[in-house]
Amino acid sequence: MGAAKQQAGRFFEDFKLGDRLVHATPRTLTEGDRALYTALYGSRFALFSSDEFAREVGLPESPVEDLAVFHVGFGKTVPDVSLNAVANLGYAECRFHQPAFVGDTIRTESDVIGLRETSKGDAGVVWVRSTAMNQLGETVADWVRWVLVRKRDAASPAPEASAPTLKEAVAAEDLIVPSDLDLSRGDTRLAGAPHVWGDYEVGESLDHVDGVTLEEAEHMMATRLWQNTAKVHFDRNARPDGKRLIYGGHIISHARALSFNGLANAQMIAALNGGAHANPAFAGDTVYARSEVLDKAETASAGVGALRLRLVAVKNVPADAVALRGEDGKYSPEVLLDLDYWALIAK
Amino acid sequence: MGAAKQQAGRFFEDFKLGDRLVHATPRTLTEGDRALYTALYGSRFALFSSDEFAREVGLPESPVEDLAVFHVGFGKTVPDVSLNAVANLGYAECRFHQPAFVGDTIRTESDVIGLRETSKGDAGVVWVRSTAMNQLGETVADWVRWVLVRKRDAASPAPEASAPTLKEAVAAEDLIVPSDLDLSRGDTRLAGAPHVWGDYEVGESLDHVDGVTLEEAEHMMATRLWQNTAKVHFDRNARPDGKRLIYGGHIISHARALSFNGLANAQMIAALNGGAHANPAFAGDTVYARSEVLDKAETASAGVGALRLRLVAVKNVPADAVALRGEDGKYSPEVLLDLDYWALIAK
Amino acid sequence: MGAAKQQAGRFFEDFKLGDRLVHATPRTLTEGDRALYTALYGSRFALFSSDEFAREVGLPESPVEDLAVFHVGFGKTVPDVSLNAVANLGYAECRFHQPAFVGDTIRTESDVIGLRETSKGDAGVVWVRSTAMNQLGETVADWVRWVLVRKRDAASPAPEASAPTLKEAVAAEDLIVPSDLDLSRGDTRLAGAPHVWGDYEVGESLDHVDGVTLEEAEHMMATRLWQNTAKVHFDRNARPDGKRLIYGGHIISHARALSFNGLANAQMIAALNGGAHANPAFAGDTVYARSEVLDKAETASAGVGALRLRLVAVKNVPADAVALRGEDGKYSPEVLLDLDYWALIAK
Repeated sequence: MGAAKQQAGRFFEDFKLGDRLVHATPRTLTEGDRALYTALYGSRFALFSSDEFAREVGLPESPVEDLAVFHVGFGKTVPDVSLNAVANLGYAECRFHQPAFVGDTIRTESDVIGLRETSKGDAGVVWVRSTAMNQLGETVADWVRWVLVRKRDAASPAPEASAPTLKEAVAAEDLIVPSDLDLSRGDTRLAGAPHVWGDYEVGESLDHVDGVTLEEAEHMMATRLWQNTAKVHFDRNARPDGKRLIYGGHIISHARALSFNGLANAQMIAALNGGAHANPAFAGDTVYARSEVLDKAETASAGVGALRLRLVAVKNVPADAVALRGEDGKYSPEVLLDLDYWALIAK
Repeated sequence: MGAAKQQAGRFFEDFKLGDRLVHATPRTLTEGDRALYTALYGSRFALFSSDEFAREVGLPESPVEDLAVFHVGFGKTVPDVSLNAVANLGYAECRFHQPAFVGDTIRTESDVIGLRETSKGDAGVVWVRSTAMNQLGETVADWVRWVLVRKRDAASPAPEASAPTLKEAVAAEDLIVPSDLDLSRGDTRLAGAPHVWGDYEVGESLDHVDGVTLEEAEHMMATRLWQNTAKVHFDRNARPDGKRLIYGGHIISHARALSFNGLANAQMIAALNGGAHANPAFAGDTVYARSEVLDKAETASAGVGALRLRLVAVKNVPADAVALRGEDGKYSPEVLLDLDYWALIAK
Repeated sequence: MGAAKQQAGRFFEDFKLGDRLVHATPRTLTEGDRALYTALYGSRFALFSSDEFAREVGLPESPVEDLAVFHVGFGKTVPDVSLNAVANLGYAECRFHQPAFVGDTIRTESDVIGLRETSKGDAGVVWVRSTAMNQLGETVADWVRWVLVRKRDAASPAPEASAPTLKEAVAAEDLIVPSDLDLSRGDTRLAGAPHVWGDYEVGESLDHVDGVTLEEAEHMMATRLWQNTAKVHFDRNARPDGKRLIYGGHIISHARALSFNGLANAQMIAALNGGAHANPAFAGDTVYARSEVLDKAETASAGVGALRLRLVAVKNVPADAVALRGEDGKYSPEVLLDLDYWALIAK
């Protein structure tokens, strides 16, 4: 009776190669989401703040912040993919296909594209490609992620091992620029800085200076806003140390918002190439961020360039005070996030 | 001069049987309320999350969460009814008459339907029937509640005692199903679970598994959002113990949101039959919830069934780890909420 | 390279008399801002809560709370004016020219109208007149403020000293009443109190009774909502004492919301004549407020009167328990805010 009605989540042996998972709770984006994103992260990119600025650069109105759309789409996959995950191992090939606007309804489906049992035999790696769609069925964003999932029964037989081949980064020519977008038409005074695509060099480093101290109420409100239900974020009794683990996406959004100070014209995210949540973050930690320019590319739009950036968030020390990795090759303990992404920037 | 202009609230002798109280501050519902409700409670019922899902089941768009409408309507009564309340004794016969949507303006009026001085003579019980209306004057929800209110002057004469006869529960045939609502048309994959009306049995118990730790900033933001002004929620100096008492409605909303895990298709609340806030909740407490199916009924709509549910919220222990009442018949100290309500669920 | 791209803020010698500063990040107001303002401050003025009430008194719909518009407009000036400020010295001559509504896009420009190097020569006072405009280029609000700004190089030459002449208060005849506004048409039961313009006397004092304890998550969400980036509000490492300083505007908004209890019909702010943030506020402090009627005036609208009010916020003691200033003429240590403003009130 009762016991069967709660979501226990899928175990490793519940995933079959080629399965299509239809995730619950479609979500209509509202003006409230826009305001809450600003209240939670203080984002200042003009494109996501002003309808007028958005129209000047070719969009019909200001879209919902790209990371908010990603968090909403991602959150829907948690109950079906990672409720029994031992570890979130990585993500790759995330592309934003088109902006989402207030009134759009986002839902997500995932294809199981890889399975590999661990040598120990009590868990396995599951790869899924997830697609967030709007109410017209058009893709808004898609991405691959892979997680280590427990087996319900360690004795159950292993599936044939199959792992997808993933790109190390989305190729510049595969980046999707919204049609009619021309960031060069934006007033750089209103955008907040004069520096555009041509002013950045590969290898350049930027310390984003500002910091933000994390609060329980804020990370929980954010994570609930995306309807992400993983209990470690909300229940102080869920972990032995009594701490609530902060959703990795909360750190990404803070770091991206901090990066405005140095990258004001890098208005949109076109792709997430990959990332690692190197260490956990908890309330009371203070987040700082720095960026490194990994690559530059032209795009199909004459007024839009692309920067491939490594965005590093650290805790409790200035962003440039710590090496990404120690001599042992492991992330330094202060590193929270190592994110590789493509931004679209005015030319 | 000045002293007369602040709201001191009504004392027991200020209430007259038959009085009609027009409460202040009508409130237009916005998309911001929808987003904040999600951020504060993480509600995942598809009907309140997706305009598309709402249209599939017969509504013009996604309504504002029913409990949010209740909190808004209820909050308006506080300055006139319970500012000098010693205790909130109970509520009954709450029915939701129609959904409210973004753009609707809610105001509340209350009729004094019962008065009874206490034997001690320094306070009295006041019963009011409150009606929350939209801008067309249509009833959105109504309910009865009764509170123990201090007298301004213990020597003032007692009114003739009069207590209304209240139903132990709203009868199934009195439940109002929104016209055109057919929850059976909703995709249960998008709703989050396959279990519909026919899958639940009277007497069945559901542990909702997940928990949420309470924060000062969250309960205060919620309570202010409903413009509920009772000072014990906001001012650490208002109680001798220096704690801010959490509004009971905050616990109801958390418990209802937690109940998604087991009751995903029970999308709407049709009636609140009664409830008790058995013990106070404070920031730092962690809330868990369980439900018991008390009754089942058909409704006027072929695709909509009704479940009468007892929703129990407890603090700091698993939801099923504690009896509702001890051997002395009193609520166990861990019990926060004992709520009896009717939900509408897909058939 | 990198170092030049972050905002270091202007130093004293970077300001030239007559300069026009175009501030970054125009901001479209949303329904989410309205809801968050309610959630953060619990404002209950009917005009800002109900579209229906707003129409009854002559506006097309409920505007965005006037202080929210001020905070948005003000926040934009911080990166260009006060990032290197040693002290915010004052503001004056703030007038609200017209209400702003959901969908309006606010941007701000500032004129440098005064410069005076300190006698010590390592800093200087900068006066700016800032104008917040909507998308049509119409003025929504304007104000003067002056700040003490560090010099980059103490040896750089002093500019010719020039200080503007500022009015001690906006004259009653210069107050702008929105066209078609007639607050006397509002139902005072819905507004929350019967007391209108004629019921207040110059010299009258009002203790607003209620109090609110401040939280880190709330003041940070508020300050980010206004895209105000001053790091002392967000980063616990920014001050030697490890405390996050609460944005003065957060205190103004709390005090104004508390003042509803006594001033329910004083629906709108027409002007801020000046104010002092007498002492810092931190999370954990509890704010109380009192008002004094400084002056009364008729306005161009027959149904709208004006009250000049001194709004005083104090911390951790009842609002009337402490003198504004001690015998030494200095603000008492419990005083947070001393604000002189004009409110529009029903006649």
